[in-house]
Amino acid sequence: MSGNHHTNWVSDPRVKTPANEGTTADHPGWETVSRELCYDGRYAKVFHDVVRTPSRPEGVMWTVVRRKYAVAVAPRTVDGKWLLVHQERIAVRRAIWEFPAGQIEPETESDENGDPSAHQTLIHGTVWRELREETGWTEGPQSRLESLGFYYSSPGFTDENCHLFFADRVVQHAEGSLPDENEQIVECRAFSTEELVGMIATGEIRDANTLACFARLTALGKI
Amino acid sequence: MSGNHHTNWVSDPRVKTPANEGTTADHPGWETVSRELCYDGRYAKVFHDVVRTPSRPEGVMWTVVRRKYAVAVAPRTVDGKWLLVHQERIAVRRAIWEFPAGQIEPETESDENGDPSAHQTLIHGTVWRELREETGWTEGPQSRLESLGFYYSSPGFTDENCHLFFADRVVQHAEGSLPDENEQIVECRAFSTEELVGMIATGEIRDANTLACFARLTALGKI
Repeated sequence: MSGNHHTNWVSDPRVKTPANEGTTADHPGWETVSRELCYDGRYAKVFHDVVRTPSRPEGVMWTVVRRKYAVAVAPRTVDGKWLLVHQERIAVRRAIWEFPAGQIEPETESDENGDPSAHQTLIHGTVWRELREETGWTEGPQSRLESLGFYYSSPGFTDENCHLFFADRVVQHAEGSLPDENEQIVECRAFSTEELVGMIATGEIRDANTLACFARLTALGKI
Repeated sequence: MSGNHHTNWVSDPRVKTPANEGTTADHPGWETVSRELCYDGRYAKVFHDVVRTPSRPEGVMWTVVRRKYAVAVAPRTVDGKWLLVHQERIAVRRAIWEFPAGQIEPETESDENGDPSAHQTLIHGTVWRELREETGWTEGPQSRLESLGFYYSSPGFTDENCHLFFADRVVQHAEGSLPDENEQIVECRAFSTEELVGMIATGEIRDANTLACFARLTALGKI
């Protein structure tokens, strides 16, 4: 599943992603006092948490929606084009252009909270799987996979976080894409950097995953 | 509440935000067949929706978490520094540096779905209110408020969307910030553009609102 046997893994020393980041564990000065499960769904769970924080040691009640963690990947082809997928998004009732993304499916508890190296293998495997499924492109002999750190999609109410990647020099898979029955990719297309920048400027690109990848890529001087 | 009586409102013709965007209304080719409320909270509502889409006219079931819409603002001071707030975020159990943001509180149904001009006044009022409350900075005679469009925080499961703004040449309010009892701003500080870019590159800035503002600002050539 890891699929990254011949890919050059590149780590930019500026990007800091401590191993314990992006977990729901309590950090120093934080303590979960109680947690009540109020909605238990396959795609989201709603909790009423009571939490002590550094500035509110008496504790505060908060509604928290828990979600699986995710990956998003900015794929660039060998000729320097960016791959975007046009995907129907039920929650917002329209199709939008986005970088490929998907949720991480932990096989065991320790995949998620234990050995950092197993966790990294799981994340990288998810990146290549989603890229292949959604675009029909994949890793080639010259491919490089680079971490762009992670981000929180809406930390006011959900613990959802997404690990961001730059997959450079990807190539077309001989057998194309592998549609997932739970999602609907209408189209995959390659865009020049100028087109990508234009779609972000106008607001045509409007999902947090793609905007977050773009922010990290530009801040790191890679676009 | 609008508070923008003497602010220069600037609209970049490249940024396109159609009036019906960012609502939950069905768009052409989409039809909500049924909607079951499964969790009814003040801060989030969970629905099981059955929806016909252009590529799936037979209908598909989806879990959708509904949230109020929001604003986020990138405030720049008269001397060219960016204002960030350090805020405790219960859902992710830590404090993070972010641009000021907050939810839009519609006073009437028509504020949300009716007259576009009333909706715009409500949104602008929310921007200035959140800026004042969270940072203690506010509009001055030379301030400019510019739309950066909107984005979806996680369109795989929630309709939450956030209108993004660039508030330039803001000034300190004589009476400082106005803390909201439901949130905990630990600190507000001004950062140079170089510092802001560095915090995005390293991953220290890791919330979708701030990354989305930054993506739009750089794509529009404003950073």
